[in-house]
Amino acid sequence: MQVFEKWESEIRGYCRIYPTVFKSASNARQVDEAGKSYIDFFAGAGVLNFGHNNPLMKEALIEFIQADGVAHSLDTSTTVKRDFIQAFADTILVPRGMNHKMQFMGPTGTNAVEAALKLARRVTGRKTVVACTHGFHGMTLGSLALTANSYFRNAAGVPLEHVVRMPFGCQTPCRGCEMGCGTASVDRLRAQFEDSSSGLEAPAAFVVEPIQAEGGVHVASQEWLLAVQQLAKDLGALFVLDDIQAGCGRTGSYFSFDGMGLDPDIITLAKGIGGFGTPLAMNLVKPEHDRHWSPGEHTGTFRGQGFSFVAGKVAMSYFQNDTLMSEVKRKGEQMASALNAIAASSQGAWQVRGKGLMQALDVGDSALSKAIVSECFQRGLLLGGCGTGGMVIKMIPPLTIPDADLTEGLQIFAQAIKAAQEAV
Amino acid sequence: MQVFEKWESEIRGYCRIYPTVFKSASNARQVDEAGKSYIDFFAGAGVLNFGHNNPLMKEALIEFIQADGVAHSLDTSTTVKRDFIQAFADTILVPRGMNHKMQFMGPTGTNAVEAALKLARRVTGRKTVVACTHGFHGMTLGSLALTANSYFRNAAGVPLEHVVRMPFGCQTPCRGCEMGCGTASVDRLRAQFEDSSSGLEAPAAFVVEPIQAEGGVHVASQEWLLAVQQLAKDLGALFVLDDIQAGCGRTGSYFSFDGMGLDPDIITLAKGIGGFGTPLAMNLVKPEHDRHWSPGEHTGTFRGQGFSFVAGKVAMSYFQNDTLMSEVKRKGEQMASALNAIAASSQGAWQVRGKGLMQALDVGDSALSKAIVSECFQRGLLLGGCGTGGMVIKMIPPLTIPDADLTEGLQIFAQAIKAAQEAV
Amino acid sequence: MQVFEKWESEIRGYCRIYPTVFKSASNARQVDEAGKSYIDFFAGAGVLNFGHNNPLMKEALIEFIQADGVAHSLDTSTTVKRDFIQAFADTILVPRGMNHKMQFMGPTGTNAVEAALKLARRVTGRKTVVACTHGFHGMTLGSLALTANSYFRNAAGVPLEHVVRMPFGCQTPCRGCEMGCGTASVDRLRAQFEDSSSGLEAPAAFVVEPIQAEGGVHVASQEWLLAVQQLAKDLGALFVLDDIQAGCGRTGSYFSFDGMGLDPDIITLAKGIGGFGTPLAMNLVKPEHDRHWSPGEHTGTFRGQGFSFVAGKVAMSYFQNDTLMSEVKRKGEQMASALNAIAASSQGAWQVRGKGLMQALDVGDSALSKAIVSECFQRGLLLGGCGTGGMVIKMIPPLTIPDADLTEGLQIFAQAIKAAQEAV
Amino acid sequence: MQVFEKWESEIRGYCRIYPTVFKSASNARQVDEAGKSYIDFFAGAGVLNFGHNNPLMKEALIEFIQADGVAHSLDTSTTVKRDFIQAFADTILVPRGMNHKMQFMGPTGTNAVEAALKLARRVTGRKTVVACTHGFHGMTLGSLALTANSYFRNAAGVPLEHVVRMPFGCQTPCRGCEMGCGTASVDRLRAQFEDSSSGLEAPAAFVVEPIQAEGGVHVASQEWLLAVQQLAKDLGALFVLDDIQAGCGRTGSYFSFDGMGLDPDIITLAKGIGGFGTPLAMNLVKPEHDRHWSPGEHTGTFRGQGFSFVAGKVAMSYFQNDTLMSEVKRKGEQMASALNAIAASSQGAWQVRGKGLMQALDVGDSALSKAIVSECFQRGLLLGGCGTGGMVIKMIPPLTIPDADLTEGLQIFAQAIKAAQEAV
Repeated sequence: MQVFEKWESEIRGYCRIYPTVFKSASNARQVDEAGKSYIDFFAGAGVLNFGHNNPLMKEALIEFIQADGVAHSLDTSTTVKRDFIQAFADTILVPRGMNHKMQFMGPTGTNAVEAALKLARRVTGRKTVVACTHGFHGMTLGSLALTANSYFRNAAGVPLEHVVRMPFGCQTPCRGCEMGCGTASVDRLRAQFEDSSSGLEAPAAFVVEPIQAEGGVHVASQEWLLAVQQLAKDLGALFVLDDIQAGCGRTGSYFSFDGMGLDPDIITLAKGIGGFGTPLAMNLVKPEHDRHWSPGEHTGTFRGQGFSFVAGKVAMSYFQNDTLMSEVKRKGEQMASALNAIAASSQGAWQVRGKGLMQALDVGDSALSKAIVSECFQRGLLLGGCGTGGMVIKMIPPLTIPDADLTEGLQIFAQAIKAAQEAV
Repeated sequence: MQVFEKWESEIRGYCRIYPTVFKSASNARQVDEAGKSYIDFFAGAGVLNFGHNNPLMKEALIEFIQADGVAHSLDTSTTVKRDFIQAFADTILVPRGMNHKMQFMGPTGTNAVEAALKLARRVTGRKTVVACTHGFHGMTLGSLALTANSYFRNAAGVPLEHVVRMPFGCQTPCRGCEMGCGTASVDRLRAQFEDSSSGLEAPAAFVVEPIQAEGGVHVASQEWLLAVQQLAKDLGALFVLDDIQAGCGRTGSYFSFDGMGLDPDIITLAKGIGGFGTPLAMNLVKPEHDRHWSPGEHTGTFRGQGFSFVAGKVAMSYFQNDTLMSEVKRKGEQMASALNAIAASSQGAWQVRGKGLMQALDVGDSALSKAIVSECFQRGLLLGGCGTGGMVIKMIPPLTIPDADLTEGLQIFAQAIKAAQEAV
Repeated sequence: MQVFEKWESEIRGYCRIYPTVFKSASNARQVDEAGKSYIDFFAGAGVLNFGHNNPLMKEALIEFIQADGVAHSLDTSTTVKRDFIQAFADTILVPRGMNHKMQFMGPTGTNAVEAALKLARRVTGRKTVVACTHGFHGMTLGSLALTANSYFRNAAGVPLEHVVRMPFGCQTPCRGCEMGCGTASVDRLRAQFEDSSSGLEAPAAFVVEPIQAEGGVHVASQEWLLAVQQLAKDLGALFVLDDIQAGCGRTGSYFSFDGMGLDPDIITLAKGIGGFGTPLAMNLVKPEHDRHWSPGEHTGTFRGQGFSFVAGKVAMSYFQNDTLMSEVKRKGEQMASALNAIAASSQGAWQVRGKGLMQALDVGDSALSKAIVSECFQRGLLLGGCGTGGMVIKMIPPLTIPDADLTEGLQIFAQAIKAAQEAV
Repeated sequence: MQVFEKWESEIRGYCRIYPTVFKSASNARQVDEAGKSYIDFFAGAGVLNFGHNNPLMKEALIEFIQADGVAHSLDTSTTVKRDFIQAFADTILVPRGMNHKMQFMGPTGTNAVEAALKLARRVTGRKTVVACTHGFHGMTLGSLALTANSYFRNAAGVPLEHVVRMPFGCQTPCRGCEMGCGTASVDRLRAQFEDSSSGLEAPAAFVVEPIQAEGGVHVASQEWLLAVQQLAKDLGALFVLDDIQAGCGRTGSYFSFDGMGLDPDIITLAKGIGGFGTPLAMNLVKPEHDRHWSPGEHTGTFRGQGFSFVAGKVAMSYFQNDTLMSEVKRKGEQMASALNAIAASSQGAWQVRGKGLMQALDVGDSALSKAIVSECFQRGLLLGGCGTGGMVIKMIPPLTIPDADLTEGLQIFAQAIKAAQEAV
C-alpha cells in the first residue's frame, strides 16, 4: 500500500473504501493479494455485466492477441470492428426496428455525452440543454454542466452554463422531497418554454437517464419519460437517453427503457458495452441527425478498441436468447425482496428502489451508509454508496452472478446492517 | 465496407483516408483483409510507440488474462497497478529527481487535460488559462476551449471561454507567419499580465505542448519554453506541459522536453503510456498541488485499466537502458535527412520540422498533401496530414520500426510525392 | 416627420404608435404641433408621476437655473443633493424605520439593477441570480440577463447567463397559465436549492418586481413575496425589490410593497424619482451590504443630477401628507371599476389587473390591443401595450391627473375598444 | 457633510477628493457653500464643455420650461428633438459627408456602448469584440467586459467574456511599456485572426477610443487607427469609435478623430452632447447597419431628454464657425506648454500627453498624484487623476474657460506640484 500512498494522487477514492490490493477476479468474486475472497456487488461501477474474466471473452481475447489482431485503430475499418457492429445491429437494433447509426468516440461515458451535446446543438442551432436534478453525466466540462451533484460541480472552477434543470420524474416519490416531480412538473416546464416571456431559451436537447444510478438509483416512471419525450419533440429539441450505467442488460433487457414506447434521438452507451472491462463508448444516433456531422469533427485517439470489439461481440451472444435476461429479472426480484425485508424493519425510514439487477437501499444517512459499506467490506462483500452524500447503497453485481454468491452476499449485507446500526 | 456505410456514423474520418479493412498488425506493419501489407508511419496517432502487438506485451497480456488478473478496477488498488506505478516511478521519475504524484482519470488525453484544468483552477482560485495558437488538447468542452483549430471549435455549439491565446514559440519560424512568436512575444504577454489595466485576468495556468503534433509538428524552442515557465511562476500560475502525443519516448527521450531544464507543475500523458493501444491517461502532478484534490472529485469509470498497466509496465523496460532511445534518435535523423532531401527540391516552399521519430513535411497546400497521403496509401504506406487543412504530412512510426521498413517507407514517400505532384 | 425618417435610427418605437410631433405638455395633457391635445395615460412610461411640467417643480427649476445651481456633479457633494437626500430620508425612510443607504449611479433603471447585481454578488461571493418569468429589469447585459422577454433577450447577441428563472407569484392567476406560481412554486424552488444534488448553485440574490409593469401588469401576492423573501434569507441570498416602475407613489403608497411586512436588502428606484422627467436612479441598500463597496467601484458620469435633485425634492412634498396617495387610491378604483365594466362584456376573455394608478386590461390578443391603442391615439388618448406581444393595455396617468381628464380618458377608451373590435 | 455620511452609500468617490459642498457654478468656476471659489479643470468628467451654466443655454432652458416644453419623451417625436437632430445633422454630419443615423438610448455612455455591441453582434452574427488595454467603456456588464481596469472588472462578480484584448496604439510610447503597440501589433493580430487555427473567433467589432481619457490620456496614432480600421473591414467586423469623453469639441474639432481619414461604422457619444450637464447619449450608426434593428429592441426610459435637446442644440452653435475650436487649440497649446515646462524638471520621469483641451501629466506615482490633486484642491483648483492607480493627472477644463482662469489654474498647479513633492 505504501507505493500508492507515496506515488498516487490524493484524489483516489474507492481504494479508501476497499483498503486492500486486489490480485485476481472471476465472475462475481475478487481476491486480494492476501487471498481473501470478496463477493462483488459493485462490478466495476456497472461495467462488468458479464462477470470478471468472463471465460468466453477470455478465450476470444487470447485468440485475438495471438492472431495479431488490430488492438487500436482510431476510426479506421477493421475486421473486429465490423464484426461488433454487425452483431450489435443484428442483435439489438434490427429486432427493435431501430436504424440508429453507431458513433464511437473517446471510450468513456463522458465523451459520449459530450458528443451527444455537440450534435444536439449542431442540429438545432441552440445552446440550452435540459437536464435533471440528481443527474450524473460525467466529469468533463460539457457533461459536468449536466451533472447535478455540487461536489462534482464545485471542482470545475468555472461556471457551468447553458443548462436548465428539471426535477427527475421518480416512479417512487423520494421521502421528504418537495421538488414536485412527475408529469405535472413537465407540464409546468412546457408552459415556461411555450411562453416567450418566461426567460428560457428554446432547448437543444433533453438529456435524461431512464434510471439515475450515481444519482441514487431513481427509476423514472414511464409516463414521465413519455411526457418529457413529447415535450422535447414539440419544442424541436432532441430527446437523449443516457443509458450508460443502466443499459447493456443491467435491468433485464438491453436498454433500461425497453418496452416503454420511447423513441430517443440519441442513446449514449459506455460501461458495459466493451464487455470485459476494457473501455468503449458508443452513441446511437438517428440517421437524420447523424448526417449533420462532418468527418472527424469530434475525434478521440482511443475510438477503435479491438479488445472491446472482441469482447463486446461475445457480449452480444447473451442477448440472442432470453436466458440471461430472465435470470436478471429473477435475481433482481430476489435481491429486491431481501432488501424489502430489511427495509421493513426501518419503520418507513428506508426505501428500496431499483430495476433488474440494479437495486438500492436508501438509508437516508451518510454516516450509516458508510458504516454499512465498511462492515460489508470486512465481511467480504463489495458494494458502494451513491446519491447525495452516498446515503444510498447500490447493488449492481455481474448479471452472471451465481445464485450462491447472490444469496451469500445478501446474507452478509443483512449482518453488516445490524453491525453498522450498533456501531453508529 | 457496406456494414460501415450502413451502420457507422458519418463522422468517421480516417477510414476515408485508408479505404480498406485492416485485419492484423505487427510492429510497423498492418495487413488488410485482402492480404495487402502496409508500412505504418502513423502508429495509431502516436499510440503504438512499441509497435503493433509488441511480442513482450502480448506474452504479458496473455499471462495476465489467463491468471484472471483484474482488468478493470476504477481507482481501487491492484497488484498490476502497483507494479506499473513502481516501474514508472523507478524508471522515469526517480532518475529525474521528480516527486510528482500519478493521477489516473478517464483513459483519454482529453480527460487528462480536463483534470489538469480543474486542479490549476482549484489551486489558484482563477479561471483564465493561457493556451497556444495551433494547440490541440482534446474535444471535450474544457480541453476544446484550449484547442485552437476552428474546425474543432465550431463543433462546440457554445462559446468556449476563459482562455487567453498566446502565439506558440516555434524553434523554426513558420513560413509567412507574422504572429510574432519567440520570447519577445512572452515579454509582451508579461507586460500585459503585469499591467492591472490590460483587461487580462490573472491566469490559472499556461498549458503548452513542447511539440505541437496535431497542430502541425511545431517544435518549441527551449528558450521560449523557459520564458513561458518563468512567466507562469512569476504570475502564480501553474505551468502545464501537455506531452500526450510527443511524450513516452517519441522524440528520443521519455519526455519530449527532457534536458531543457523545465520544471512543470503538471504533465499530461496518454496515448503511448498504455503501451499496447489500450487506453490509459495519467497526469503527473506536483505533490503541493495534488493535495488540493478531495477524494473522488474528478472520477471516471475506466480509470484503472489492467491491460494498460501490464503493457505499460513492459513499456518501462524500454527506458531502463539507452538502446531504444538512441535508435529513435538515429532513425529520426535518417527520416529528417530523407525529408530534407525531398524539401530541397521545393525551392523553399516546403519545410521539414520535427524531433526524434516525429518528423513532418509541411507542403503548404492541402490538396497536394491529401494527394500525397493518398498516393502513399496506394503504395502501401500509412501516414496522415496534420495542421490547418492537413497540409503538414506527419511521420510517427513505431519507435521499434525495423530499418528495412523505415527505408522502404521513405522510398515510397518519395515516389508518392512525385506522383502527387504530377496529379495535382 | 421627414427629419426623423431621414436621420433617426430605425429602432425608434413609440413614435410609430403616436405618429405626431409633440410640442408641449402640462399635467396629464400633451399637445402636438398641430395643436391637438391628448390625455396622457402613459406618463412617459411611468416617469411623470407628478404631471408634465409640474408647476411647483417648474418654479424650483427656474430658480435653480437662475441661481447658477450645480447641474452636474458626479458624486461630489452639492447643496441640492443634500437637500434631496435629507428630504428623502425624512419623508420616506425614517417614518418607515428604514436605515438604507442611498446609492446614486448612472441615471437609468438598468444601471440601478446592474449596481444591485454587482453588490449582491460581492456580498455573497456567488454568481447566480433568481429572477422571474415576465420580469423586466433593463437592457444592458447584466440586467438583460434577468429580463424575461425573448424579444429583448434575442438582441443581446451573446448568451445571458447566471440566472435561474422562477415563476412570478401572481395575485390573480393568469388565464391559461400552467407554470404553477404561488407559494407552492417557492416551496419547490426551496427544495431544489436545499438539495445539493439539484444542480442549482446557491444564489446571490432574488430580484423581484412587486408589480411587473412592462411584463404585463402582474401584481404579486403578499404571501408569495413573503415566501420568496424568507427563501432568500434562508439561503443567504439578498432580497432585491425592483420598484422602478411601480414605486414613487404609483400604487397609492411610496413603495408598491408598503404595508406587506417586507424587508428588502436592496430597493432599486429610477423613473419617478427625478420628478420632472429628468433622469435619476437610486438604490436603497442596507448598510451592512453597502459597506462592501469600495469608493468609485461602480461609477457613471451622470450620477449627480441637479435638476433631478431639485424636482425630486419637490416630489417629496407630495408624500408629507396623505392627500395625493388617497387621491391615487380613489382614482385607481375609478379606473379599475371602468375597466371591469368593459371586461364584463368579454365573457371572461379579458382580465383587469392593477393597483392604484397602474391598471391594465389584458385583452389576450396582440392585434386587438394594437388596434385599441391606435383608436385611442386618434381620439386623443395616449396609452400603450405591455406584456408579451403587447396584448395588455396599461394605464399609468400622472398621479395628479384631474378628474375630468381621467373620466374623459376612460370614456375615450370605451369608445376606442368598440371601434377596434369592429375593425379587427 | 453629516447628511452624506449618514445617508449616502460608501461607494461615493469624488466627494472624498473634493471634501466640500458645492453650491453654485459658472463657466469654469465652482463655489462651495463657504463661498470659496474653485477653478474647474475637471468639468464634470468632461461633460461641461461649454461651461457651467452656460448663459445661452440657461436662457434657452428657462424659455423651454416656461413654455411647457416636453421634458421627457422616450422615443416619441417632439419639436425640440427635431430641432436638435436637424442642427446636429446640418452642423456635424452633412459638412463631413456623413449619413449616419442617430440612435438615442438610455442617456449614459455605458448604454451607448451596450447598444453598439448589440448591433455589431446582430449585424455580423458573431460574439467576440476586440477592445484595448487601458480602455474604458462603462460599468454595465456588456461595456464592462470591454473596460480594461481590473479595479472595475473585479466588481462584476461574474466572468466578463467574449472580448479579445489588443494593445492600444499610443502616439507616444508609454514609459517602460513593453506590450508592443503600434501597427506591428495590428499586423500580429491580423495574422492571428487570419489563421483559422489561432484559436480566435472572428470578431463582431473593434471598439476603440481615439483618445483614452479614463485610461490615462493615451492618444492613438493616426496610422494605428487606420490599421485597426483596415483590419476590421478586412475581417468583416464593425469599426466602432468611442468618442464619449474625447468628442464634442474637446480636442479642437467636433470628433477627436477628425481629419484622420477614418470612416467608423458606429460612433458612440454621450457626456458633452447634452451641453448643460443633463444626460444624453447618442450613437451614430451607418444606415446599412442601422436597418438591422427592429423597433424598440433596445429601449430605455430616459431616451428623449428635452433639456438635453435644448441645450445640445445651443451647443451646436459653437461648431457653426471656427471660433471656439481655434480657441481650444490655442489654450490646449498653452496648457501643454505649461505642463512640459513642469515635466522638464523631472528628468524624464514625467510625461505630458494630450490633444486640445485634454492634457495630462503622467507622474508615474499614485501617491504623488494623489498629493498633487489634494494640494490643488486646497489652493482652489479642481482636477483629477486617471489611469491605473490614478497616477496621471488629467486637465479637462470647460472649452470656454477664460484665459485668466486658465493661467491661474496652471499657476496653482505648478505650486501644488512643489508642495506635493515636498510633502511626499
